[in-house]
Formats: sequence, structure tokens, C-alpha cells
Amino acid sequence: MALADRWLLPDGIMELLPPQARQVELMRRKVLDLYHRWGYELVMPPIAEHLESLLTGVGHDLDLNTFKVTDRLSGHTLGVRADMTPQVARIDAHRLRTEGPSRLCYCGSVLHTHAANMLASRNPLQLGAELYGHAGPDSDVEVIALMLATLDEVGVQGSISLDLGHVGVFSRLMELCGLEAQQQADYQDMLQRKALPEIDRFIGGLEVLSDTQRSWLCELPRLNGGAQTLARARTLFAGDDALLAAVDYLSDLAQRVAARFPSVDAYFDLSELRGYHYHTGIVFAAYTPSFGQALAKGGRYDNIGRDFGRARPATGFSADLKTLMDLSGQLVEQADDVVLAPAGEAEGLQAAIAELRKSGTRVVQQLEGETNCGGRYRQQLVHEGGDWVLTDL
Amino acid sequence: MALADRWLLPDGIMELLPPQARQVELMRRKVLDLYHRWGYELVMPPIAEHLESLLTGVGHDLDLNTFKVTDRLSGHTLGVRADMTPQVARIDAHRLRTEGPSRLCYCGSVLHTHAANMLASRNPLQLGAELYGHAGPDSDVEVIALMLATLDEVGVQGSISLDLGHVGVFSRLMELCGLEAQQQADYQDMLQRKALPEIDRFIGGLEVLSDTQRSWLCELPRLNGGAQTLARARTLFAGDDALLAAVDYLSDLAQRVAARFPSVDAYFDLSELRGYHYHTGIVFAAYTPSFGQALAKGGRYDNIGRDFGRARPATGFSADLKTLMDLSGQLVEQADDVVLAPAGEAEGLQAAIAELRKSGTRVVQQLEGETNCGGRYRQQLVHEGGDWVLTDL
Repeated sequence: MALADRWLLPDGIMELLPPQARQVELMRRKVLDLYHRWGYELVMPPIAEHLESLLTGVGHDLDLNTFKVTDRLSGHTLGVRADMTPQVARIDAHRLRTEGPSRLCYCGSVLHTHAANMLASRNPLQLGAELYGHAGPDSDVEVIALMLATLDEVGVQGSISLDLGHVGVFSRLMELCGLEAQQQADYQDMLQRKALPEIDRFIGGLEVLSDTQRSWLCELPRLNGGAQTLARARTLFAGDDALLAAVDYLSDLAQRVAARFPSVDAYFDLSELRGYHYHTGIVFAAYTPSFGQALAKGGRYDNIGRDFGRARPATGFSADLKTLMDLSGQLVEQADDVVLAPAGEAEGLQAAIAELRKSGTRVVQQLEGETNCGGRYRQQLVHEGGDWVLTDL
Repeated sequence: MALADRWLLPDGIMELLPPQARQVELMRRKVLDLYHRWGYELVMPPIAEHLESLLTGVGHDLDLNTFKVTDRLSGHTLGVRADMTPQVARIDAHRLRTEGPSRLCYCGSVLHTHAANMLASRNPLQLGAELYGHAGPDSDVEVIALMLATLDEVGVQGSISLDLGHVGVFSRLMELCGLEAQQQADYQDMLQRKALPEIDRFIGGLEVLSDTQRSWLCELPRLNGGAQTLARARTLFAGDDALLAAVDYLSDLAQRVAARFPSVDAYFDLSELRGYHYHTGIVFAAYTPSFGQALAKGGRYDNIGRDFGRARPATGFSADLKTLMDLSGQLVEQADDVVLAPAGEAEGLQAAIAELRKSGTRVVQQLEGETNCGGRYRQQLVHEGGDWVLTDL
């Protein structure tokens, strides 16, 4: 690599410089303190660990998105984490071994081999909260509420909408319709592309299906929109208790979230299959009109603990703190207000500087020979009448 | 990997669980706020970047200690950072391009292929501060003072001693004695092992040296100890201005640091060559009796900017925040004092919980069906006389 290029970052890798880095730091604190007040305990898993641990219970996508290295000490393959959620699930399952519910939160850098989309960085600052050991709407409502409280805390500008889905609908339909594995995979692929005409042709060609089953599979990709979506789903799925239970679950959830966050619009999508190999119940994501991707997203993933040898229900969400920062209207701290102190060790000078800093004032001490002090100082420390005092610059 | 082992971390890789993780988080804040008050600006470089950038201007050791991956997008080799200092130097040289001095600080995870010693982890939480654009004692004093202020801020228990060396002494001696490259390398290796008899035999065999030169090279590994070390060095090096200047520089530095930190003992070691390929002037490290390794260390490294195409004097230090935490006597926050709220959406309940959290109280809301609430709650939120009130548990 030429000298001239040595300082360039790889495509999609981002870094934070002053003053943004401090802004992100202060926002990190606000959000972690919010989680703390909600009873979530902070964990700090390592940036790399055994690849098997990082990929346990998660899909093939994460495997492709994880950088791998060989551990010189053991010869094992390590992965640089591309997602912290499996790490936190491992901690809940094996390190903490709490009997009742456990609430964990985290904030750290992750690394992706490729960006999730054109807007995303390959090294997000992942922030999230996970609730283990409880199955049911209470825990799902809690994590959704905490996700929305996070957006509120960082001051994301613009209206927020909440997308809600339930991967149990798809699983149950597959169970009822008895499609072969390849047919399921094809249908799932079309669903994710929302390729409606293609789906209609595909379903039309499956002669093994009854008329009811055919209507389920044709209508599923159309089951998205506002509250009336759930009414349509109830009519369509009438007769199957498991499908109706999933619809009721979403309806109950949406009502409870709406009571706490009346300004948030709910949008339902029963064909949403994000992380299908991973999620086992509801999936959700928050959007705002000015940003083309989800601000934060999550869902229920009850199987991951089983893959670590200890089954635990689980639900949670995560976000990229840098994205939240970009969309925030807040400046957590005011612009610089720095005091300039003269160079050297004159009597009382170091004590005066120490005193100011102790009281929270930013003080920069000049360095011998320094001439260019810029315009960032508003006050200086000068020696007057035997005392060190502040004067305006 | 067997299911039973999947949750084990690789040797030397550590993670932080509750409540230590929160303690480390709060200590991180205290230290970064200290740097902020000293006028140091936070930067957040990425956890991986082009290997050439990470290894620019640093020695072979760091290369061996860096995990490498291939970037799927570009085919270039990326490194997972093993040290953040070269990243911060890159930022100073190319991203900020400040004319005058620039003060930068950072805190982030790094990853090592092997642990520095038996006590060290392979994933330290590196914390540090760097001062660019000023050559001279003022900037060296400032970073040493900030390093000692850091140890003070985190409350490291026990007395602190400060080791001071100057790699300019070795460089100048090599220049004066005209040893061949291999002889220099052999001598340097013996010096670092403090192999005194071996050095005496080796120097005795070098017939090209004058008696004065011979005495320099034999005495150098013995030039360590308290303040009298500098007096002995002055006698030994009498006649060479460059060597005497290095000794005077150390002496001046030590006096200025002692004036600000009278309880810190200075220890001089003129044969200290830590990071010789990297450091260009003073090198320093802080020790405490209860811990066998340096708590924090640093030095001057004026050449690294040149290797990024922009020469800038540089001095700074770094430490592992997890080590500092282990040695700290402080508990930054008191033990849990969590309020338990009942499950559900009873009228006024969510508002009462939100109000408590807003005022800084930790509130955990029970989840439906949850029975085991443990003994961590001291108060609960109950509905009494139409109001939600706190009662003792």
C-alpha cells in the first residue's frame, strides 16, 4: 500500500472524531443509564471468541458476515463478533445461570464482512437490551417499550413507526400445508421479496393444497398495513387456533404499546420473516421517515439458549448508536468553553489549574514555544496581585 | 466443538459480567471526563482497519500480536487493532491536521494474538491520551502528570512508582561506538535481559572499542536506581553533550513531576529500551507493589507521524482499564437499590414507574407468572388509597 493511502479506512469502516466522538460517548451514557434504571445489568463480552459460540443458534447470514481468524494458542477458529446478541445469550445461559428472569444490556463495536445496506457501516456501535427467562407478552411489551424509550432518550427527530410481525404465523402455515423443504424455501424467498405475481403462480401450481391452504399462502404476503390487517388475518385464519392465537398476541401487544406510546404508529406485517432461523415469535422494528432502514429492531428468540445447552425464553432488541446519533436532534453537551493557562511551573499555577479542573472546568495548559492557540479559548488564567485569576480573552 | 464447550472463552480472553461491567463503565466515564477537563478530545477509531495503517512506524512485535483477516470487498489485509496508539497518530496526522498541538484520548477494546504476560488478558480495554505537535519537556511532563492523575482518579491502592528512561541514550551510544548492525542487535538483546556477565564478556571481545566506549557499554545496564543514577550517568558520559542533554532532560522531568506528585517515587533506568523501534525519547511506566506489571506506560514517539506522511512530535501513555479496575479500591456506585413494581397495566402504574425512573430510581417491573423475585429488592410499588406508593419489602 502506498504511503499516500495508508491512512485511508477500508470501505464502509467508519470512525468518530471530535466533537462527534464525545457526543456519542455522552449518548452512550444516557442510554446505558436508562437501561440501568429499568433494571438491566450491563455486560461487556469480548470482541472475539470461539466461532461456534458466536454462531450458535443463529442463521447462515451471520456466518457469512463474521470475520474469522485462527487462534495461535489453541488452533481453534475465532470470530470477531458481528452481533453481540448471541454473546449475551451465552452469558445468560452459562455465566449467570439466574433462575428467574434476567435483564441484560450492552454497548460495543461489532464488525461485519459486508455492510447490511448502502447506508450501514461495517463497524456499528451495537447497543441493545435482552430479557431472558420469561415467555409471554409482558416481556415482549417491556423490550419494545424500552426500545421506544431509547429513541425518545436520544431524541430521534421525526415520527416513529413500529413494525410488528410474528414468525409463528409462517411456521404454523408450513406445518399445516405440508410443503416439502425446497418448496418452503422457495416460498419463503418469494415472501421476503414480496414477489406477489410469482407467489400466485407458484401456489397455483401446488396441486396438493386445499383451497383454504391456497388462500392462506396467497394472502399471507398481503397481510400488512394498519390495525385492519389483524381483522383480515382473523377472517382468513378462522378455524385454526394457533394462527388466531398469534394474531391475538400481536393485537394485545400493539394495544399495550399504544397505551404507553400514543404517538407511535403501529404497522403489521404477518409475512415479515427477518431472522427466521433465529426468531421464534414476534419480530419488531422501529422506523422514522427520514431514514430508509430500521433504527432499531428485535424479536423473540427462544431457541438460542437450548443451543447453548440451557433452554431459556428470550426477547430483546438492538440498534447502532452511531445511527441514532446521526438522527438525533440533541447536542448533549454545549460547545467548548476552555480556559487557557500559561506554560510552566510558576508558583501556585499548577494548584490553580488543578482547582479549576476539579470544579469541572476544562483547562488547557500552554506548551513552551506554542504560538498558535486558535480561537477556542474564551478565558485565560493570569497572575494578578499575587493570585491566579480568570480574565476574558 | 462439543456443545458443553461452546460457551467457554478462548484462553486469555476475558469478559465483564454484572456488577463489574457497570463498575468499569462508571470508571471509564470518570477517566474520560478527567481527560476532557484537561482539554483532551475523545476519538473512536475502528476495531479493524488496513494492516499497513495499524503497523505503520511500529515494531515487529505488534505485527506478530495482530490478528489479520482478508477484506472480502477489497482483497486487502485488515488487522484487528492490537494497539490504538497508531490509530490515534493516524487521526492526528491525516484526519484532523491541526497546526498547533492536539490532545487526543480514547478508550476501546484491542485484541492480541498472545498475552503480553501471564497476568495480562488478550483483550485489554485500552485507555490512553496522546499529545501531538509539541517536542520538549512541557508535553512529556503533561502526559506523565495525566497518567498519574488517572491512577489517582481510579483510586489505585498502594504507593505508585514512576520508571523513567530515555532511548536517546542507547541510540547515541550506538552512534558513538560504531557497532555493526548484528552487534547492536546482540547488545540490545542482552540489555533487555539485563544479562550483566554476558554483556561484560561481549564488550570485552569487541576490540574496536576505546576504553571509554567500553566503559559506557558495560555501565549502561547498571545505570538504574534512584536520583543518584543520574549523577553516575553524568560522570560516565562527561564529554558528550548529547548524552548529557538526555540525562538533564530526565532530571528536569523528574523534578517537575515530583513537584506535582510528591508521593510518587521516581526510578531511573537508562537501559530501558521498551518499544525501541517506536520510541524516540523518554519512556515511562507506573508501578505499584501489589501488581507485577506496569499499570500504565508510555513515551515519546516522534517518528510515527512521518510514517503517515506528516512528521509530528508525539508523546502519550496507555493502560488497561480492566487492570486499573482490579487494582482500584473504589466502588464507584453503591450496591443495588431496586424497586419492584407489579406486573400489568393497571391504571396509573406505568406513569408511576416512569416517574420513579425519571427521578433516577431503578425500577423492575414483575413479569406475569414470575414467582422468584430474589432478595435484591428493598421496596415495592403498591396501590394504596388510589395512589401508587413505595413500601418496604
